[in-house]
Amino acid sequence: MWFTAGSMKPPLRTIEWIPDRRGVVLPGRVRLIDQTKLPAKLVYLETDDLHKIWTAIKTLQIRGAPAIGIAAAMGVVAAVQKSRARNGAELVAEVERAAGYLATSRPTAVNLFWALARMQRLARAGRARPPAELRRRLARAALRIRDEDAAMCRAIGRHGIRLLRDGCTVLTHCNAGGLATAEFGTALAPIYTARQRGWDVRVFADETRPLLQGARLTAWELAQAGVDVTLICDHTAAQVMKEGRIDCVMVGADRIAANGDSANKIGTYAVALAARAHGVPFYVLAPSSTFDLTLASGAQIPIEERDPREITHGFGRCTAPGGIKVYAPAFDVTPARLITAIVCEKGICRPPFRPALQRAAS
Amino acid sequence: MWFTAGSMKPPLRTIEWIPDRRGVVLPGRVRLIDQTKLPAKLVYLETDDLHKIWTAIKTLQIRGAPAIGIAAAMGVVAAVQKSRARNGAELVAEVERAAGYLATSRPTAVNLFWALARMQRLARAGRARPPAELRRRLARAALRIRDEDAAMCRAIGRHGIRLLRDGCTVLTHCNAGGLATAEFGTALAPIYTARQRGWDVRVFADETRPLLQGARLTAWELAQAGVDVTLICDHTAAQVMKEGRIDCVMVGADRIAANGDSANKIGTYAVALAARAHGVPFYVLAPSSTFDLTLASGAQIPIEERDPREITHGFGRCTAPGGIKVYAPAFDVTPARLITAIVCEKGICRPPFRPALQRAAS
Repeated sequence: MWFTAGSMKPPLRTIEWIPDRRGVVLPGRVRLIDQTKLPAKLVYLETDDLHKIWTAIKTLQIRGAPAIGIAAAMGVVAAVQKSRARNGAELVAEVERAAGYLATSRPTAVNLFWALARMQRLARAGRARPPAELRRRLARAALRIRDEDAAMCRAIGRHGIRLLRDGCTVLTHCNAGGLATAEFGTALAPIYTARQRGWDVRVFADETRPLLQGARLTAWELAQAGVDVTLICDHTAAQVMKEGRIDCVMVGADRIAANGDSANKIGTYAVALAARAHGVPFYVLAPSSTFDLTLASGAQIPIEERDPREITHGFGRCTAPGGIKVYAPAFDVTPARLITAIVCEKGICRPPFRPALQRAAS
Repeated sequence: MWFTAGSMKPPLRTIEWIPDRRGVVLPGRVRLIDQTKLPAKLVYLETDDLHKIWTAIKTLQIRGAPAIGIAAAMGVVAAVQKSRARNGAELVAEVERAAGYLATSRPTAVNLFWALARMQRLARAGRARPPAELRRRLARAALRIRDEDAAMCRAIGRHGIRLLRDGCTVLTHCNAGGLATAEFGTALAPIYTARQRGWDVRVFADETRPLLQGARLTAWELAQAGVDVTLICDHTAAQVMKEGRIDCVMVGADRIAANGDSANKIGTYAVALAARAHGVPFYVLAPSSTFDLTLASGAQIPIEERDPREITHGFGRCTAPGGIKVYAPAFDVTPARLITAIVCEKGICRPPFRPALQRAAS
């Protein structure tokens, strides 16, 4: 068992590769939690069909940057595992076709392209090899992407737990948990790590309008893992802090500028303001791959807008007047001065962030 | 026309008494906007049936403390307008029966009891009068309750507009608008007053989870009145302020303590914190009847909790794991130090609030 402590359950594995036969990686199937069915039902999608994997990414059955990357890599493996290519060059062509197709599933997901590029590079480098060996190499690479992500999450958990203590209460926003990654998540990694050590850690989860990732995903995965979790509306975070019930805030990040300014799901900035007003430490937890040291500050991060219908038609029912103007930024930028520390897989970065992030990224 | 300036439309009348014949008050019917049909459809309920009026209050077809009080008073009139009572004493008994019945519709609504008590006192004081005259007196009293509320709203608007300027942008939370009162509302009164003067005022409306009064009601009534309104998720208020787009915040209040601490819909406190962080003035607008000078501070205001299902099953769909723990306070208390001014029908109260509120209440 990879999870050992007492009564705690591990977070469920978001995505796995299931070999058909024990001890042999190929052939096999992708197994992933169908997140569109959460929180009502836990349904797994198990398939070796390239189109079904494409659809899973496209329709958000799997979401979260790292998890999408893993799904894409495994998708390439599934596509070529029963290939009849007579030589490496033919197999490489098949890999390119599968990768090109998978790339169209979520055209703005950076991790998707990163993972596909890595698989294509590996294929091209091995074009002189026999197809069977190349297929095994690709499978191992996909599993490595998964394992590296899991290790990254665990490293963040190992560093981040130093910011917690037994019996503490953490507030989080959106879902930067196991469902977005291979295993422990980023913002939730220290919580799972603490639970593994037998610590008692409680969590308040912002529901996170408009898509309710906090209610649908974070609350669900924490409850699954046996963590004491309380769901609140986003605006209630300030009140819970005022009541003295929060020891620290832990959130993920989409992009972190050289000065520490951190872009994350819309609403994170409001939580950071409330945390500062109540003297509650505010921690950002994200892999160093999120650092964008070419950006001097968060002012250079463009704020993209979402479809207004996510707000006006979010509950399967129209909840606002027809044609109403809506402002729906996808994320906001929390300025570095409101951030107590940034935790990545290399360690804990504290202000001044510029040199600390540079060290961690190098 | 009670609304004169250029291209602007008045806010629709939430509740009215419609006489059957021109120039004569009795008999007549209550006409109210069925708020359960908003924002999808504008449907009026027009009735002189006591049970239908009871149901309208019970099922939130009409809501908002002042509006409920008016509906209850008109309900008493409707109940006795065709009475066959042979003397005042018999009519008083009918008034008591109707009032007792209406009081069961929303047992925690203070304004409901206040309005019913006022109608009963009037009836008892007039028990020696002929029934026809007593009925007319009751009808006039109900209209007076409506008119007093409209005048109160307009006074708040007249004082509050001094805090605005042509071209400004106001952020509001929940619905303290015309739909909660007879006419202009409280927090929205300065905005309607400004529009009446031909000013250009823009509004950002928080959607106000979990019941979405901001999306369903505030955005709707402002759009109806031709006000430029933009809907946002609650947590986006901080981001909009950060972008420098908000000149001031205007919210209502359920209860204001002697020191100025103000209880209002949950989420108001988070808005106040964000306003302070961005140097945006934060105004509370409420009738002086909301002042509870027996309370030294907001710490003495109990925080009641709502049904968790309002958060987990908003709008007929389950959006959270079954059995999840939820914290759902109905309101929060914004401390006086975050409030720039409190506006009531008597004028603008500025810090120190204790003497200012006392003067306004006396």
